[in-house]
Amino acid sequence: MALRRELKRATCAVTRQALSPHSSRRYAALASFPNEPTAPSVITSTVPGPVSIEASESIGSFQENRSHVLVGDYSKSIGNYLVDVDGNVLLDVYAQIASNAIGYNHPALIDLARSDEFITAAMNRPALGNFPPKIWKDLHTTGLLKVAPEGLSNLFTMMCGSCANEGAMKAAFIAYRARERKDALAFTSEDLSSCMKNAAPGSPDLSVMSFTSAFHGRLFGSLSLTRSKPIHKLDIPAFDWPAATFPKNQYPLDEHGEENAKAEAASLAEVESIITTRKQEGRPVAALIVEPIQSEGGDHHATPDFFRKLQTVLKKHGVFFIVDEVQTGFGATGKFWAYEHWDLPSPPDFLCFSKKAQAAGFFHSIDTRAAAPYRNFNTWMGDPIRSMQARTLINVIQENDLVSKTAQVGQILYDGLNGLSQISAGKGKINSLRGKGAGTFIAFDAASPAQRDGIIKGLKQRGVNAGGCGEMAVRLRPMLVFDRTHADIFLGTLEDTLKSL
Amino acid sequence: MALRRELKRATCAVTRQALSPHSSRRYAALASFPNEPTAPSVITSTVPGPVSIEASESIGSFQENRSHVLVGDYSKSIGNYLVDVDGNVLLDVYAQIASNAIGYNHPALIDLARSDEFITAAMNRPALGNFPPKIWKDLHTTGLLKVAPEGLSNLFTMMCGSCANEGAMKAAFIAYRARERKDALAFTSEDLSSCMKNAAPGSPDLSVMSFTSAFHGRLFGSLSLTRSKPIHKLDIPAFDWPAATFPKNQYPLDEHGEENAKAEAASLAEVESIITTRKQEGRPVAALIVEPIQSEGGDHHATPDFFRKLQTVLKKHGVFFIVDEVQTGFGATGKFWAYEHWDLPSPPDFLCFSKKAQAAGFFHSIDTRAAAPYRNFNTWMGDPIRSMQARTLINVIQENDLVSKTAQVGQILYDGLNGLSQISAGKGKINSLRGKGAGTFIAFDAASPAQRDGIIKGLKQRGVNAGGCGEMAVRLRPMLVFDRTHADIFLGTLEDTLKSL
Repeated sequence: MALRRELKRATCAVTRQALSPHSSRRYAALASFPNEPTAPSVITSTVPGPVSIEASESIGSFQENRSHVLVGDYSKSIGNYLVDVDGNVLLDVYAQIASNAIGYNHPALIDLARSDEFITAAMNRPALGNFPPKIWKDLHTTGLLKVAPEGLSNLFTMMCGSCANEGAMKAAFIAYRARERKDALAFTSEDLSSCMKNAAPGSPDLSVMSFTSAFHGRLFGSLSLTRSKPIHKLDIPAFDWPAATFPKNQYPLDEHGEENAKAEAASLAEVESIITTRKQEGRPVAALIVEPIQSEGGDHHATPDFFRKLQTVLKKHGVFFIVDEVQTGFGATGKFWAYEHWDLPSPPDFLCFSKKAQAAGFFHSIDTRAAAPYRNFNTWMGDPIRSMQARTLINVIQENDLVSKTAQVGQILYDGLNGLSQISAGKGKINSLRGKGAGTFIAFDAASPAQRDGIIKGLKQRGVNAGGCGEMAVRLRPMLVFDRTHADIFLGTLEDTLKSL
Repeated sequence: MALRRELKRATCAVTRQALSPHSSRRYAALASFPNEPTAPSVITSTVPGPVSIEASESIGSFQENRSHVLVGDYSKSIGNYLVDVDGNVLLDVYAQIASNAIGYNHPALIDLARSDEFITAAMNRPALGNFPPKIWKDLHTTGLLKVAPEGLSNLFTMMCGSCANEGAMKAAFIAYRARERKDALAFTSEDLSSCMKNAAPGSPDLSVMSFTSAFHGRLFGSLSLTRSKPIHKLDIPAFDWPAATFPKNQYPLDEHGEENAKAEAASLAEVESIITTRKQEGRPVAALIVEPIQSEGGDHHATPDFFRKLQTVLKKHGVFFIVDEVQTGFGATGKFWAYEHWDLPSPPDFLCFSKKAQAAGFFHSIDTRAAAPYRNFNTWMGDPIRSMQARTLINVIQENDLVSKTAQVGQILYDGLNGLSQISAGKGKINSLRGKGAGTFIAFDAASPAQRDGIIKGLKQRGVNAGGCGEMAVRLRPMLVFDRTHADIFLGTLEDTLKSL
């Protein structure tokens, strides 16, 4: 009850105040968490502190712990602030690798977790493809289907980002082969027997194309599309699937129009050339997958024009277009889906999501639903409680206009970083700033990989939890409840950190 | 509170009564759900009834619904009984494709869902590899690690059965290549550059071997190992990985010792021959994966002797041994893990689990933990709330001795089916009865695929929800709270169904 009251208060606080980008004072007062700390607080001489280190080592007795950054105390974390087991309070602009949408312990989510509907669903997990629960349709009509990309009315739920991409890839392969047959279900006896031996034609030599420095997951199919770092791929067998060069653009995009247009044209030519060559070789490309902003691989952006032309090329050759919004989806770029920035004349074929959505899966059109059941199927096929969480997230985001707010805070953050890159603290240390107009989905390069690591370490020591990507980038992935106050704290802390290097 | 009291009562009822296989009356009184229905009740003229059909069609507006069996009302389901939206009450011996361990709405699980610890974990999902929660070690020391197979002290959590298998496969490939290098981390520049192109040596031409009619999942790596039905594999590119013939045994195993020994020897010879051939071809088999009982593919059993000899062959050739216990794990075979039936001289290398555990992942030894972090990694790396659920399940199972109980009920069930196969109702309709001594993990063949479908339909119409597998098998996958009373109901209903055919 106390939490319900708190939620009500928070919601009122948000809706009472009209949002104006020109009124910084009113903007700064906008917060969803009345009890959120007002500033970070670091009480140990290093982060992680001794309690984190001990807890991490203890986990090391049964699993890998060298990737641990710190050990969290999630019962104490609130809003934008992650509290660790040492009692350090960190402003979190990494947000669980970009997977926390509206902050720690958001009262609307806590309320959800206490509901009978959630408890029943959590403890009676159905095999959704066979025995869906009574609530299944309504849960999605009031939730994920409200944010279905226009033209993509079908939803396939899965369990994580990699699975979501692989589910879409399977749907694309099935649809590609169905199109080649007169009757989608007219499998030949050779199809039926050869697939049991993993051989063509039943297991066809088709591929999904991705881009250099892409990241699409780490299962066997999705890892074959991932091209970000060798450490992800080494020693794991991969499909012989092609990659085109992602445009090597310069930033800000709009100030390098001519060079970037050339880079993007070269990339598109390569895409088309690979499609043509593979077709001639009898092993066609069935689909292409792309992140609207390449994230894990280093935060690489391309222009809306690039993506529009890419769609044209794919349509020309009958190649399905899969948009991987696992990291970009759910508002962080200042649009609910990042692909909305592109203004495509028609929707992509598949849009995949996970992370911030908490639920995972893909949207697609009825045209790519298989002609027979059980072709794309598994035991759980998603998770009702994660769909419930997605519904609550969508409602909180929409009621509080958090996507527009993120667009505005992103502008403030970008301008602040741009300013910082001009003064002595930032000069030569903040390079290739990118994400102008892309909400808070912002990154910059340090002068070297070592300096990048130094910046992230320095930020953490001063109470800000940030993450890296690519070779030497710092990526910002704050939550949608990150407002101007938090941006100010971040910028001040970054300036101090840069000065200390 | 009411539920907590109910739990206490249920637990007391269980522990008050010593379990004796010779005392059927006392056994029949043993139940975890005081309010469980005493019999099925079907109130519609067909199952699914009109409300289920309408609800399913409505789901069909946004996703595949032709695989729906019925639409469940999980708030009303209890213990072994699944209630549908028409109000039909079905004895459930399929249990959400073998993924429900201790019954619907078990009071211990409802209690868990209401705990602050669960609520915090559900709504603040961490990126476990970077920011694990304070509770992570303790959660597993008191949970999944209590059932770690001897010698496999390491636990890698994932999200589903397919992912669990693929995680183990990745670990096996990494360990295989590490063994070939003098220094596990001495990657050559060729390794580093070639893997970014999905080419050898960085992306090596190694394989995982599986068996004919195996099922290991439906993502791209796991689907390449699955050989159960064409519909699972058609049109999806697959790795050129080998399969050996699973022994074509006759049942009961112990009554066909000589023929089965021959079939098993032939299978083992084929395994060894494939390993040798592939090695000569420069594309070695790095691991072999096997289900202790092939489930989805038709419930095929092999003897403990087969698995012991299989391990010997694998050890001889340095091939990792992955045991896929996604369906067999967590007690249903009368051992906590089915591989315990084999009495292996040393543990397998990997044991994968999911389904009944609700959590998913694999156990392995420290030897197969990668020499560097981030090699086997993803954003979520499991889910704390599913680990919590696994802990509660393990505690309920252990406190109530549900594994031994399942062994005993399984014997009753098997004997009943065997008896039924001898009388006129079952003659020629119950063939190849299998699962003797394997708990309730029992199956039989019908006379034809059509008759199998007829049996499942007839059972449903009479209030029993059962599932099929393979071409014409009926598989029983009741929960661990299925007792003699339920077995009696099932057997009576099956007899009626068979008579009506």
